[in-house]
Amino acid sequence: MMNKKGMLIVYSGPSGVGKGTLMAPYLKAHPEAVLSVSMTTRAPRPGETDGVAYYFVTRERFEQEIAQNGLLEYAQYSGNYYGTPRAMVEERIAQGQDVVLEIEVQGAMKIKKTFPDAVFIFVLPPSFEVLEQRLTGRGTEPPEVVAKRLAAAKAELHSASLYDYIIVNDEVGRAGERLEAVICAAKCQTKYMKNLIDKVSE
Amino acid sequence: MMNKKGMLIVYSGPSGVGKGTLMAPYLKAHPEAVLSVSMTTRAPRPGETDGVAYYFVTRERFEQEIAQNGLLEYAQYSGNYYGTPRAMVEERIAQGQDVVLEIEVQGAMKIKKTFPDAVFIFVLPPSFEVLEQRLTGRGTEPPEVVAKRLAAAKAELHSASLYDYIIVNDEVGRAGERLEAVICAAKCQTKYMKNLIDKVSE
Repeated sequence: MMNKKGMLIVYSGPSGVGKGTLMAPYLKAHPEAVLSVSMTTRAPRPGETDGVAYYFVTRERFEQEIAQNGLLEYAQYSGNYYGTPRAMVEERIAQGQDVVLEIEVQGAMKIKKTFPDAVFIFVLPPSFEVLEQRLTGRGTEPPEVVAKRLAAAKAELHSASLYDYIIVNDEVGRAGERLEAVICAAKCQTKYMKNLIDKVSE
Repeated sequence: MMNKKGMLIVYSGPSGVGKGTLMAPYLKAHPEAVLSVSMTTRAPRPGETDGVAYYFVTRERFEQEIAQNGLLEYAQYSGNYYGTPRAMVEERIAQGQDVVLEIEVQGAMKIKKTFPDAVFIFVLPPSFEVLEQRLTGRGTEPPEVVAKRLAAAKAELHSASLYDYIIVNDEVGRAGERLEAVICAAKCQTKYMKNLIDKVSE
């Protein structure tokens, strides 16, 4: 309708809930939306390439970014740093692109303070048991890591109520439709329409 | 997911903006949603049948309903009463159906006080000129009625910012998709998910 800024989409949910599986088809169908690549000090998992899911960096490099105010938010999680490089996000939004930040709850709450216009979406499993099965079934991690991740997941789930929208991932097709609807509807929120309302009713 | 109450959808916009045209395909595709039939003292337009778009009643009958608390909201608009019969709305919502109230701004704001959980959707024309053309082009009303309706439309447009979501009716297909998305997303709002969040994170 008009040349306007893009939307910041903050997207969270516990490990194993299916965040990536739900978001991938959305990004494919919506070239105006891009995924922000986070920076982390955790080790790459098998098959992970630097610059795709994450930029994998040393603690020294990460702390340099912090010192230079180069991160929009960062948090420590399971002993590793995770953060969002600031420049890419701000540029893309200014150009009218939507930017998806797939980040942890701690980081999301920091974004809430600095980007009050962002939309906050949390992916919830239909039950904790389903999440437990998915995390145990992955089979790529030793049991103590899974246990630690389950405890972290429980803690994250408690924070779901701080988000604007909840996508229940009960069935991937329906959950994907809900995600699509939520992002479309977020753009119809009255707070983003003030200029048009003023123009039409003047 | 669970047997729960339906949602009250309050749906407004100026005369001629295309509210009915946008809502009809939604209702056809979603048998779980029903349109509330309002009661009015205005005269039926050519082709309008009692009990379909409105229940057409006398002022005496309408004032009887007011006295008996039989209306969820009512307002006077262009010299006529318009109101929402209470019983049907409350029954359907209790049964898990969504009820759409296509009502004026005055009435909508009364609903906002009594049903804070309702979702409030306003249909906006892409410009005032487009609305003017649609209202003038209808050709079923004398010019002084059109002028009065344009003034009323202007007044209604000023209230758009009191709603939760704005559907810009720039093109009927896209606007219909936005309406569909907004209703789907409204159900994903965190405030309706408290029970599930508690269950999953307990």
